[in-house]
Amino acid sequence: LVRYKAILAYDGTEFAGFQRQSGQRTVQGVVEESLAGLGWTGGSILAAGRTDAGVHALGQVIAFDLDWSHPESDLLQALNARMPSSIAVRSIQQTKDSFHPRYEATARQYRYSIVEDPVRRPFEERFAWRIWPALDLGLMDEGTRCLLGEHDFRAFGSPHKDDRSTVRSIRQAQWTRCEQVLEFEIVGNAFLYHMVRRIVYAISRVGQNDFSAADIGRMLEDGDANRIPGLAPAHGLKLVEVRYE
Amino acid sequence: LVRYKAILAYDGTEFAGFQRQSGQRTVQGVVEESLAGLGWTGGSILAAGRTDAGVHALGQVIAFDLDWSHPESDLLQALNARMPSSIAVRSIQQTKDSFHPRYEATARQYRYSIVEDPVRRPFEERFAWRIWPALDLGLMDEGTRCLLGEHDFRAFGSPHKDDRSTVRSIRQAQWTRCEQVLEFEIVGNAFLYHMVRRIVYAISRVGQNDFSAADIGRMLEDGDANRIPGLAPAHGLKLVEVRYE
Repeated sequence: LVRYKAILAYDGTEFAGFQRQSGQRTVQGVVEESLAGLGWTGGSILAAGRTDAGVHALGQVIAFDLDWSHPESDLLQALNARMPSSIAVRSIQQTKDSFHPRYEATARQYRYSIVEDPVRRPFEERFAWRIWPALDLGLMDEGTRCLLGEHDFRAFGSPHKDDRSTVRSIRQAQWTRCEQVLEFEIVGNAFLYHMVRRIVYAISRVGQNDFSAADIGRMLEDGDANRIPGLAPAHGLKLVEVRYE
Repeated sequence: LVRYKAILAYDGTEFAGFQRQSGQRTVQGVVEESLAGLGWTGGSILAAGRTDAGVHALGQVIAFDLDWSHPESDLLQALNARMPSSIAVRSIQQTKDSFHPRYEATARQYRYSIVEDPVRRPFEERFAWRIWPALDLGLMDEGTRCLLGEHDFRAFGSPHKDDRSTVRSIRQAQWTRCEQVLEFEIVGNAFLYHMVRRIVYAISRVGQNDFSAADIGRMLEDGDANRIPGLAPAHGLKLVEVRYE
């Protein structure tokens, strides 16, 4: 058996999230079924992160052990041939036996897309949150700045079961606008459950003049999740990249 | 009754084309059902063009007669509220009683998207044709140039039932590349059935060095559809805009 690391892209629209759940169509479930067709008998693949229902990925990282005697490029092709059009294995390579895509990740990059329009947009809305009226990007930049660096983000999400710390480090967080499309790129060492979506929700309220940039700072300090009364919809979010040393 | 002109955007993925067909889910069928919910009793809406199964639209133009005593903005909202997320009425306005979106159109703009990648791409592939190896854009530009102007395009498609002429005038046709995405924008007075998809297929073969630019010129002159042995897939095509005087 050799351990393989693979990069997955998926359109999360029609999946009940990444993690396998009985009776639900999940990304993990579909990938494991495809692997089983190639003789894989591991109990469970490993993944860098569990994306929520409706969240997309350009660069989810998984690992699995497989007995495969052909080149990696054949494995890539064989796996893609078994998967629905909404999931693609973008690349695959042999890795060390101890590789764990979650524990060894040093940073994650997410992108959140917003489209500003009073009227529905069938193309963009599959992968973006539609908002109207337009947002004030200057205010949002101000509100975003106070999130940079290491903070206790417990107001912005809950920790995963096996890690009780709520301290996370945000290395980069910035908004860009191209015509009516806003993109938020955020890079951190790791993220709490729902953290990116809560951040986007809070900052979008800053952009609508409902919260001030100073309010965002106070939410961080207070650590009271009740201060953030919502989260941005799943379908605007993409896991872009998981980085390793 | 007042005649309204409306601009529609739709994701054609899950429709059996624009035109109503019994037992099929079509764009026209869904729009007419939504209008019926607002008291519309016309037999059939008028449209600028009948897009094929799987073809998308950013700017399809339709017209219908309705007795509506509220502002146009309320009609826009009421119609959008009744439609699935894959169809949006982008704008709506009163027009003259005799307006016909097809007969009065002076030009149509289509866009065809290609993504160059050896591996599947779940996001782009919904709206683009994936091709590998990469295409030679210089050759394609050459092949495209001979299509500009007025020609008998019978080798590139068949006429609609009520118009036996196969002469069409192409005002603009150009390719752009942004990273691995190629976009083809084409504007003409009107197009034959499957004409844009046959053009894209033929030019993509030029870009793969299977046909020469001179071959495209000969196909035009010969007028023999058998020379063009395929058509580009529907899902890469979008009706972008219909123009009027």
